[in-house]
Amino acid sequence: MSLYTQRIENVRTQMIKAGVEALVVPGSDPHLSEYLAEHWKIRDWLSGFNGSAGTLVITRDQAGLWTDSRYYLQAEAQLRDSGIQLFKEGLPNVPDYIKWLSGQLSGGSKVALNGTCSSAGHVKEISQKLQSESIALETHHTLAEDVWENRPALPADFVKIHPENLAGLGLPKKMELVHQQIKKTGATHYVINALDEIAWVLNLRGSDIPYNPVFHAFMVISLRETLLFVDQKKLPRNVQEYLTAQGVKIKPYANIYHHLTGLPADAIVFTDPARTNFALVSALQKKIVKKEGTGIITRLKGVKNRVEIQNVKHTMQLDGAAMVRFLIWLEQNVPGGRVTELSAARRLSDFRAENEGFTGESFATISSYEAHGAIVHYSVTPQSDVPLKSEGIYLIDSGGQYLTGTTDITRTVALGPVSEQAKTDYTLVLKGHIALATAIFPRGTRGVHLDILARQFLWNHQLNYGHGTGHGVGYFLNVHEGPQSIRPQDNGVELEAGMVTSNEPGLYRSDQYGIRIENLILTKKVSENEFGTFLAFETITLCPIDTTLIKTEMLSAKEKEWINQYHREVYAQLTPALNKEEAEWLRERTGELK
Amino acid sequence: MSLYTQRIENVRTQMIKAGVEALVVPGSDPHLSEYLAEHWKIRDWLSGFNGSAGTLVITRDQAGLWTDSRYYLQAEAQLRDSGIQLFKEGLPNVPDYIKWLSGQLSGGSKVALNGTCSSAGHVKEISQKLQSESIALETHHTLAEDVWENRPALPADFVKIHPENLAGLGLPKKMELVHQQIKKTGATHYVINALDEIAWVLNLRGSDIPYNPVFHAFMVISLRETLLFVDQKKLPRNVQEYLTAQGVKIKPYANIYHHLTGLPADAIVFTDPARTNFALVSALQKKIVKKEGTGIITRLKGVKNRVEIQNVKHTMQLDGAAMVRFLIWLEQNVPGGRVTELSAARRLSDFRAENEGFTGESFATISSYEAHGAIVHYSVTPQSDVPLKSEGIYLIDSGGQYLTGTTDITRTVALGPVSEQAKTDYTLVLKGHIALATAIFPRGTRGVHLDILARQFLWNHQLNYGHGTGHGVGYFLNVHEGPQSIRPQDNGVELEAGMVTSNEPGLYRSDQYGIRIENLILTKKVSENEFGTFLAFETITLCPIDTTLIKTEMLSAKEKEWINQYHREVYAQLTPALNKEEAEWLRERTGELK
Repeated sequence: MSLYTQRIENVRTQMIKAGVEALVVPGSDPHLSEYLAEHWKIRDWLSGFNGSAGTLVITRDQAGLWTDSRYYLQAEAQLRDSGIQLFKEGLPNVPDYIKWLSGQLSGGSKVALNGTCSSAGHVKEISQKLQSESIALETHHTLAEDVWENRPALPADFVKIHPENLAGLGLPKKMELVHQQIKKTGATHYVINALDEIAWVLNLRGSDIPYNPVFHAFMVISLRETLLFVDQKKLPRNVQEYLTAQGVKIKPYANIYHHLTGLPADAIVFTDPARTNFALVSALQKKIVKKEGTGIITRLKGVKNRVEIQNVKHTMQLDGAAMVRFLIWLEQNVPGGRVTELSAARRLSDFRAENEGFTGESFATISSYEAHGAIVHYSVTPQSDVPLKSEGIYLIDSGGQYLTGTTDITRTVALGPVSEQAKTDYTLVLKGHIALATAIFPRGTRGVHLDILARQFLWNHQLNYGHGTGHGVGYFLNVHEGPQSIRPQDNGVELEAGMVTSNEPGLYRSDQYGIRIENLILTKKVSENEFGTFLAFETITLCPIDTTLIKTEMLSAKEKEWINQYHREVYAQLTPALNKEEAEWLRERTGELK
Repeated sequence: MSLYTQRIENVRTQMIKAGVEALVVPGSDPHLSEYLAEHWKIRDWLSGFNGSAGTLVITRDQAGLWTDSRYYLQAEAQLRDSGIQLFKEGLPNVPDYIKWLSGQLSGGSKVALNGTCSSAGHVKEISQKLQSESIALETHHTLAEDVWENRPALPADFVKIHPENLAGLGLPKKMELVHQQIKKTGATHYVINALDEIAWVLNLRGSDIPYNPVFHAFMVISLRETLLFVDQKKLPRNVQEYLTAQGVKIKPYANIYHHLTGLPADAIVFTDPARTNFALVSALQKKIVKKEGTGIITRLKGVKNRVEIQNVKHTMQLDGAAMVRFLIWLEQNVPGGRVTELSAARRLSDFRAENEGFTGESFATISSYEAHGAIVHYSVTPQSDVPLKSEGIYLIDSGGQYLTGTTDITRTVALGPVSEQAKTDYTLVLKGHIALATAIFPRGTRGVHLDILARQFLWNHQLNYGHGTGHGVGYFLNVHEGPQSIRPQDNGVELEAGMVTSNEPGLYRSDQYGIRIENLILTKKVSENEFGTFLAFETITLCPIDTTLIKTEMLSAKEKEWINQYHREVYAQLTPALNKEEAEWLRERTGELK
């Protein structure tokens, strides 16, 4: 019996005691974070699978794990010998876990879920689906948590102030904006459990979670008072004084549920069902009127202010210089045969760490050579690591957290000779990248409309990629943030001037290579006339694009001019931060394409 | 006191008797048709406004009409002296009628609506909104209908059989397909009030409604029986025999509501909330389980069968030949000074009428010269009619109903010298038209994704158009049909092989001119590989595109090649139907663009 089989057996004992036929364990925390503190990795502890997306379902005699195409290979490896069946979401004839559960259970059965670790919207959805199969969902259980011996404690790291000169807006001004929006919704209270929203509105940062500079807390903002539910030990005296001076009242972290239960019956509470955990919403008295919508702070935070934009642009110079140093290092060291995927990722991180204001990586670097590049979310480990050779294609997707902004960049480079097919693929991806970068569009345009610009040339060759084209990027906050995105799914969010989004089309050929070209783009207003207000993007990432992989005969004159203009900009902006040799290398790499 | 003021006063007397504070009168019929029989033009009779979209709202002392930008000018003219306030939907700070009503009425008020003339989905939506303002909606009233003296009777025209050799599938096969889909939804009964759906599934056609070859009826299809609710006088003996032979039971038209009320409590009823009137759904017992979705027949009908496709292509040859004759006639007669918008539209209709199988126009021809072209849904009347001169831009949007298909085509032509700006605009519209026509896209792509292809070049010049890019087109049925469309709104419908859709980008400069280029495009499968199944469009409309309006220097080599290839096809397909002079004219107009 493996470690995981034993743990699942222990959970089953709890299930029998509780009288439930199944348990659903999503890979999330009460803040619905993308990355989790060890304390919340319940699904990982039970199954051994540690991908960022995946749901474990345990019945009395079966166990299954549902994950998407990014994690098929990883899950197969990690679930081996666990007795847990892998369900590959997105493949034909693979049931979702609700369908599967309704096949396994008879009517009248009960399914348990810890309501603190799923969004209100998701619980509502699965509860309705189960109900239509006469299966009840119970959300008050902590069956897995109860058998977790030696569970890691919650992090107790200190919270820091993110000063107003870096944040662009002070706490009082941000609170004023939030109050305005609360009034617009007609609510009296606004409940927040998304950690990046709390960090943004308070101008605080933490280190409880890998890659995201946030800390565990809840907030309730009413028109009368602002409450922060946080472990007080995490607040050094200056932070406590800062909060108190701003009128923010500090309450114990775990008291949030009790507090919500005590809200008066005439309160009108605003929540974002996609980003608020179910237990918070269900703690409210039934009589209380609930207003729902995209998080108020999500929307405010998504539009960067003048200082944030100015600082992010400066950060791009620092980050681009680190990328240039890395690309030079790669070119010089790969031929020696001692560079591997892992050592390359580490070297890049070291170059970034030399930059002022750098606090860490903004996500786990994807450093992938040849066939590994085809695994979209490849995460190199000592076991998977391979040396880079002077041939073929290397893809590196990485980013940094700086006090002055968050970066996210992907470059695909030729380490030596590559196939003609690879060059064609690269050029098609690049054409899509340019088409999105140069788009002009009227106000009201959503990401779902623009997505095809990045795909059209691939589609013409009957090629495609399976991920979105762009996500919002935080400011010294989460590298993936809302509300906007550029993808085939319609999220109803219009692009607005001030939003920072990624532009990252790609192409992945199984067992061959992966290609992705990613820059960050800032939405800006272009003009206003009788046909509308028109917006466009400004590319703010600064790093040369490998021109040796381009088939120039496939580019239009305008596309070539875009690359040349971009490279002139990269050269002009980065040279001040480079030494003479580095600048000389960059001059060559940004030379005019003819 | 005007005619309309008097009628509204009569309605107010009814409102007082019924104890309601307001009445909502939408411009629709129990079948939610786009075009209405005179019997159902209640809003027109009350207000004098006869646009295809608009809602009249009457309170005890106010009246307002809500319509969209297509009808601003028309409504202004028609409502003059009526005392009815015009609300221009889509303009900033114009409240929708629900918001306006909640400002006018106090809590506890009642609003009346005839539930037979609004969709179940719409009633649900407005009912919820009114409820949140503590205003009740009552749907059983017929306050306006009750005071309508000399109301026109329902049409009693004969219904005809659309034979299987033209329809491609017989009634039994269609019913089998419908039954399969009913089973898939888990329903026992399927209620239909959309007239084109009834006509399609029964292979019957009528003439109750202008432009749409349909007849007034309801249907209930269960797995056990098929019921048609129709005025029996409309069915000649051969149609009655045909229906009886196929097992279709005929019931009186008005009995549908009573029949639905009598359905057994264990029935499970499928309806399309967007295309089923509210009274039908509310006639069902409360206990009955309701399943909702896009109409089963809407989806089946949207994908044309082999015979339909073959026949539509043949119809395009006939229709294209009529268009060519019209364009020649226009060229020869405009210089004489006696052609007007109205006479041109009539002449085109006459040319179409010479074609085999032609039964009438598929919508009211938009024949618009210069500034009139900027009014997107311009409908020429003797009052608005103007002569065409040998200069400027003429736009004609028209279509025919044939036993072998429905056509819809727009051409914009220069009648003589035009401005450089007009040529630039025309070329931008054409580039968009070509980009959509030549798109290749994976299965799963929806209209919302493709829409930008037609707009991108206009957007680059900070121009845009305010209507959708494409709508589904019926087969000897409604010229506007679902389920697919190509527009910025996401309807969730994927494009499928066999669908016929319009491709009609445009540009409209107020007081100057309108430009639109419209062909119908057929979705076809291209290939299947590891990246998906790829689809593309085949342009099936056959008629030359005015090349004198093109700025060739703005076209890419590929765009020119598309035009040349299209014109070669037009020439090859149309000449067999043309005489020598006509063919010679066409040869010239389809000459190679260099």
